[in-house]
Amino acid sequence: MKVGGVPYRAIYTAAGGAEVRVIDQTRLPHRFGTLRLETVADAARAIRDMVVRGAPLIGATAAYGVALAMRADPSDASLPKSLALLASARPTAVNLRWALDSAAELLRPLPPGERSDAAFDFATRLCEEDVSRNRSIGRHGLEVFREIAGRAAAAPGPINIMTHCNAGWLATVDWGTATAPVYLAHDEGMRVHVWVRETRPRFQGAALTAWELGQHGVPHTLVSDSAAGHLLARGKVDIVIVGTDRTTAAGDVANKVGTYPLALAARDNGVPFYVAAPSPSIDWTIEDGAGIPIEERDPEEITRVWGVDEDGVERRVRVTPEGTRAANYAFDLTPARLVTGLVTERGVCAPERTALRRMFGRL
Amino acid sequence: MKVGGVPYRAIYTAAGGAEVRVIDQTRLPHRFGTLRLETVADAARAIRDMVVRGAPLIGATAAYGVALAMRADPSDASLPKSLALLASARPTAVNLRWALDSAAELLRPLPPGERSDAAFDFATRLCEEDVSRNRSIGRHGLEVFREIAGRAAAAPGPINIMTHCNAGWLATVDWGTATAPVYLAHDEGMRVHVWVRETRPRFQGAALTAWELGQHGVPHTLVSDSAAGHLLARGKVDIVIVGTDRTTAAGDVANKVGTYPLALAARDNGVPFYVAAPSPSIDWTIEDGAGIPIEERDPEEITRVWGVDEDGVERRVRVTPEGTRAANYAFDLTPARLVTGLVTERGVCAPERTALRRMFGRL
Repeated sequence: MKVGGVPYRAIYTAAGGAEVRVIDQTRLPHRFGTLRLETVADAARAIRDMVVRGAPLIGATAAYGVALAMRADPSDASLPKSLALLASARPTAVNLRWALDSAAELLRPLPPGERSDAAFDFATRLCEEDVSRNRSIGRHGLEVFREIAGRAAAAPGPINIMTHCNAGWLATVDWGTATAPVYLAHDEGMRVHVWVRETRPRFQGAALTAWELGQHGVPHTLVSDSAAGHLLARGKVDIVIVGTDRTTAAGDVANKVGTYPLALAARDNGVPFYVAAPSPSIDWTIEDGAGIPIEERDPEEITRVWGVDEDGVERRVRVTPEGTRAANYAFDLTPARLVTGLVTERGVCAPERTALRRMFGRL
Repeated sequence: MKVGGVPYRAIYTAAGGAEVRVIDQTRLPHRFGTLRLETVADAARAIRDMVVRGAPLIGATAAYGVALAMRADPSDASLPKSLALLASARPTAVNLRWALDSAAELLRPLPPGERSDAAFDFATRLCEEDVSRNRSIGRHGLEVFREIAGRAAAAPGPINIMTHCNAGWLATVDWGTATAPVYLAHDEGMRVHVWVRETRPRFQGAALTAWELGQHGVPHTLVSDSAAGHLLARGKVDIVIVGTDRTTAAGDVANKVGTYPLALAARDNGVPFYVAAPSPSIDWTIEDGAGIPIEERDPEEITRVWGVDEDGVERRVRVTPEGTRAANYAFDLTPARLVTGLVTERGVCAPERTALRRMFGRL
C-alpha cells in the first residue's frame, strides 16, 4: 500500500534482488524508515526486536533470513545454525516455524551451490503467496461490503467499517487481512470510513492502523476501545471486520484482546461481525477454542505508554501509581456463535466445522 | 478513606472549620497534596480545573464555595455573583446546579449577618449526607457481596470484584459509590480483590481507582479495558459493580464509556452486574435512556497521554500519527435489561420503573 504516495510492501528486495529491506515498525507512527537486512543475524534481530511483527510478515522475514544465510555460507553446517537462530527470535510465532520448516525441507537435499538462489526464490514465492491470499480475502470481503452498502443504499454516506488492532498491510507483506477489502473498496472508488479502535495496551490501532490508513488516504476516525459499544448502539457501524491469530476447526477465533466484547456488542445491535481468516491461521488440530492458551505479556505495557512529546522526543511515561500491580492478557477468544462469517482466500465461510472442512477440501 | 495510613476525605475543613481543603486530583497518582480554598474564586477554579471531579464532590465544593463567599461578603449583591461564578465552572454538572440552588434558597431569606454560618452549616450537612448515603450503599452492597461469597464458599480465594472508571471516594466526599461496599468489606476483614479497568482515555481507573485502593490497602490488579471479556469468560470475576452518572426512571444507566460492553460481557458469562446508584443520580424525568445526550470531549484525550517519565517529570506524549482524527465519546448507555440490580442508599432495587418508584416513595 502507499506511504506518502509511494507504493510499499512491509518487506521487499531492492538493488535487483541483492538487498532485503523492511519497514522499521518500532518507530511508527513517529518515524518512517526502512532497514536493510544484510545477514541472517539482521533478520533474526528484526524479528526479535519487533522491527517486523504480524505472523505473515514474521514468516516472510524468516524466509529471507534463510536466504541471506545461504548467500553468505550455503554449507551443510550453516543451514541448521541459521534455522536455529531464526527460530529462537520469536519462539511462539506459528508462521515463523512453518516458514523455517518449509525452507529446510527444500534446501537440505540441494547441493550447497544451488541453495542461495533456491532460498531467495522460496522467500519471494512465500511473499507473493501472502499477497495473493490477502488480495483474495479482499475480493471476498469486498463482496460483503457491496451487499451491505446495497442494503443501506438509501443512506448517502460511506459504509462504516470498524476494526480492531492491526490486521493491516504492516502485519503482512501487503494488503493486510482485515484491511484488504477496505483498501480494495477505497481503490475502486467505494466510499468507506473506518472506525479504528486504539487497541490498548500496545496501541496497534492508534499507532499502526491509523498510520497505514492515513498514508494510503483511507478516511478513518480513531476511538477508544471502550467507545465501540456506543457507536454500535447508535447505528454508526455497518460492519465489523477483524483479524485472527488462531482460528479453530470449529470457527472459534483467538485474536487481540478486546475482540470478544466487540463481537458481543455487534451481536447485541445486529451488526455483522466478520473475521478475515487466511487459511494458515486455521488450526485444524483444535476444536474447542477454550483450550487455546492466552499469552500474558509484560505488565509494563499496561502501566507505561510510549509516544513523542511536544518537541518530538520519544518518551515512555507511567500512567499508574508506582508499584501498581497489573495483568496484561494479550488475546481473548471469540466463540463461533458470535461470528457472522470467516472471510478466507477461498470465500466467505460459516464459522462451523463442516463448512470449513468442505471449503478447504478436508472432508 | 486512608492515604498513607491517615484517614482523609476528598474535601474537609481544618483549623476548627476556618479552612477548607481539597485533595488536588490533577496531580494524582503522581503527586499527593491538598489545596486550601480561601475564596469563592478558589473553589470555582478547583471545579473548573478538575482539582476536584465527580458529581458529588463537585456539589460539595460548590457548597463550600458559597460559604467562603458569604464569609468574605454576605451582602445581597455578593450572593448572586458567587452563585453565577460557581455555576459557570462546570456548567453541565447536575450536582453543582442542585447544590447552588439549594444554598440560594436557604440563604436568600436570611439577614446577611447570619449567612456565613448558615452557608458553612449547609456545606457541612451536604457533605455528611453524601458520606452517609455512600455508607448505606456500602452496607447494601456488602450484603450482595456476602451472598455471592457464600455461594462460592467452597472456593477459598477472595471475592473478585470488577469495577470501571473511578466511582471511588475521590469522586465523593468519602467512601465512593461503587467502592463503598469494597471498603466496608475490606475493613470488616472479608477477603476482596478488585479488577480495576484502566478506563481510557482519561485513565481514571489506572490513575485514581488504583491509587485510592492502593492507599487504603485493598488488593487490586489493573487491566486494560479490553481484558474484561477474557477475565469474565475465564471465571475470574464474581461480581461487577460500577457507578452511574445518570440513571433513568426505568433503570437505564448512563455511565463512563465502556460500561455497556462490560455489562454485555457480564451477561454473556452469567456474572451479576450491579450499579451503585445514589438517589441524586436518578433522573425521574427521563424514562428512555436512548434520549440521554452523550458528551463528546476533546479528541486530544485520545491522541495524547499524560504521565511521568523515568525521572519523575510529568509529560504528555502523542501516541498517534500527527493529525490523526479522533472522536472521544465519554459515556455510553447500559440498558436496564443488562443490570442485575441498582444498589441505592435505601437498598438494592430491580432496574425497573415501578420498583424504583416504590423504593423512593414516588408511586
